[in-house]
Amino acid sequence: MFELHPVLKKDTFLIKDLKLCQLLLMNNSFYPWLILVPKKPDLIEIIDLSESDQILLIKEIDLISKIIKKTFNPDKINIAALGNMVPQLHIHIIARFKNDRTFPKPIWVDNQIMTYKSEEAEKIIKSITKLL
Amino acid sequence: MFELHPVLKKDTFLIKDLKLCQLLLMNNSFYPWLILVPKKPDLIEIIDLSESDQILLIKEIDLISKIIKKTFNPDKINIAALGNMVPQLHIHIIARFKNDRTFPKPIWVDNQIMTYKSEEAEKIIKSITKLL
Repeated sequence: MFELHPVLKKDTFLIKDLKLCQLLLMNNSFYPWLILVPKKPDLIEIIDLSESDQILLIKEIDLISKIIKKTFNPDKINIAALGNMVPQLHIHIIARFKNDRTFPKPIWVDNQIMTYKSEEAEKIIKSITKLL
Repeated sequence: MFELHPVLKKDTFLIKDLKLCQLLLMNNSFYPWLILVPKKPDLIEIIDLSESDQILLIKEIDLISKIIKKTFNPDKINIAALGNMVPQLHIHIIARFKNDRTFPKPIWVDNQIMTYKSEEAEKIIKSITKLL
């Protein structure tokens, strides 16, 4: 049975269940930062997904990237499946701006976070949900 | 017409042309690090690819990840499309080990590189090509 990893649960808000993935908002107001987590147990790598689920995954990455582009109009979108700290397969999709805290470096060089005020997070969740 | 970005050209060895992508070996012996570059002009984001090319891309990511697993037996595979420095769409596929220089951090926190001796690079290219 799929269960979201406790670290992802603690650090994110659930936006919506998609066909393959849970779509999460990272609770870090420094970057518009969404996460896709395929809702299947025991996944660590993208190669652990079946061929048809990999196709679903790229479709959901495309969908969420387009929504990020429309919602935040970033200079660049960063997409990554790392999982060195939290082993459960999850894909980061992050809106990057030339004037954000760490551009052009990946956001993982940033050791700080700033959590959202709850009304800020609600507003983002609402505007993204509307486009799904 | 597709032309490999000069920075990617300078920093990598060509392993092979796949159906969608050029497969490159990053010239950095600190990490087994491959790069896929879709051979279409003017691509920046994954959403710039057509739906059928996105499916080809995830298939080539799957193929190369499996080859990386077989060749290097890493503790984790890191996959990322960032492009904050080099805008041409390219996907990193990197073998990570718990005892590598930066694990569990992403390799981009590493400010140093060490280029391969040419026979080392040739050996890796040969062993990967054999599996393609």
